[in-house]
Amino acid sequence: MRHFGVPFREHGLLLDTPEFEREIGRWSPGRTVPALHDEDGVVAWDSLAICEYVNDHYLDGRGWPRDPRARAHARSAAGEMHSGFVALRKQLPMNLRRRPDAYRWNADADRNIARIQALWRELREAHGAGGPFLCGEFGIVDAMFAPVMVRFDGYGVETDDNARAWCDALRALPAFVEWRDAALAETVRLPATDDIR
Amino acid sequence: MRHFGVPFREHGLLLDTPEFEREIGRWSPGRTVPALHDEDGVVAWDSLAICEYVNDHYLDGRGWPRDPRARAHARSAAGEMHSGFVALRKQLPMNLRRRPDAYRWNADADRNIARIQALWRELREAHGAGGPFLCGEFGIVDAMFAPVMVRFDGYGVETDDNARAWCDALRALPAFVEWRDAALAETVRLPATDDIR
Repeated sequence: MRHFGVPFREHGLLLDTPEFEREIGRWSPGRTVPALHDEDGVVAWDSLAICEYVNDHYLDGRGWPRDPRARAHARSAAGEMHSGFVALRKQLPMNLRRRPDAYRWNADADRNIARIQALWRELREAHGAGGPFLCGEFGIVDAMFAPVMVRFDGYGVETDDNARAWCDALRALPAFVEWRDAALAETVRLPATDDIR
Repeated sequence: MRHFGVPFREHGLLLDTPEFEREIGRWSPGRTVPALHDEDGVVAWDSLAICEYVNDHYLDGRGWPRDPRARAHARSAAGEMHSGFVALRKQLPMNLRRRPDAYRWNADADRNIARIQALWRELREAHGAGGPFLCGEFGIVDAMFAPVMVRFDGYGVETDDNARAWCDALRALPAFVEWRDAALAETVRLPATDDIR
């Protein structure tokens, strides 16, 4: 939304706090983040559902590539990300503040990492002529994989040239820089230990 | 696609066979089923990506409800199904031939079952006035949850009135009946034991 200039306001809840447990249900019926509220009572609380809603209502379809072949390819890759890569998600949780250290993951996570890089390579080879992103210009498919770039950076995952080129482009995208800097600038209120459920 | 009268041909591969292992990559880049091939080299291999592609190219958007609030709600529920309910998927795998027996599942699967029924109730209460399906008329959100109905039937999962009404409607849908009957009529070629990897 930031990249496409769709205005929105953020309401933050600190994860793993009593406040989160108390408040999240009011914002997100699935108790997941993020959730989007729009006028006329619209609520979307799944990452892909939010992207598709914004694509329909604010982007006139520009969130996905126009070309049907690229669009089906991008949606399939986004779908793999949305439903899969469980080992990567569990073993390399996203943390913008993390720096690589001695921590390592298992072969399942390595297979996820290899598959993700294959997806990126196939997308860029087939549809990436118009720019540095997965289908040329930045779109929903890049947004869906952005947390993977943060994970790769934070854990020091080895990447191939194609992955590095895409990660570099994403790291330089103004909307990403703004989002990352805002997150890093947050003063995290650490709740007292006996406040944590 | 069957329900909306979009013509297609099926190419079946028997799961867990050497043939499947050998052939699936040619059909589905993610090695998942189903995968859709269309003219001009279109390939979609993720369930939601297939639905969105068909919705864009053949249904003029009729796969989801027209109303933006219902559409966002349906997409969020479909998204929860697409990315979650891991315990249910693992412990109650879909099998059209299964009949309830003494097998039971754990509390995680029970929580999935309760959440799914809450989703169905919320959808039908908010958007189900125009018919017996989750948003009135049959659409993508019903297709995404159809395997859950098969699981509930096969394992004898207890359901509330709302869930039963939706399951009854789905069980009577001609496209579902046709799909189920075709699947049950298949002569399953059991490969010789030493053929199974």
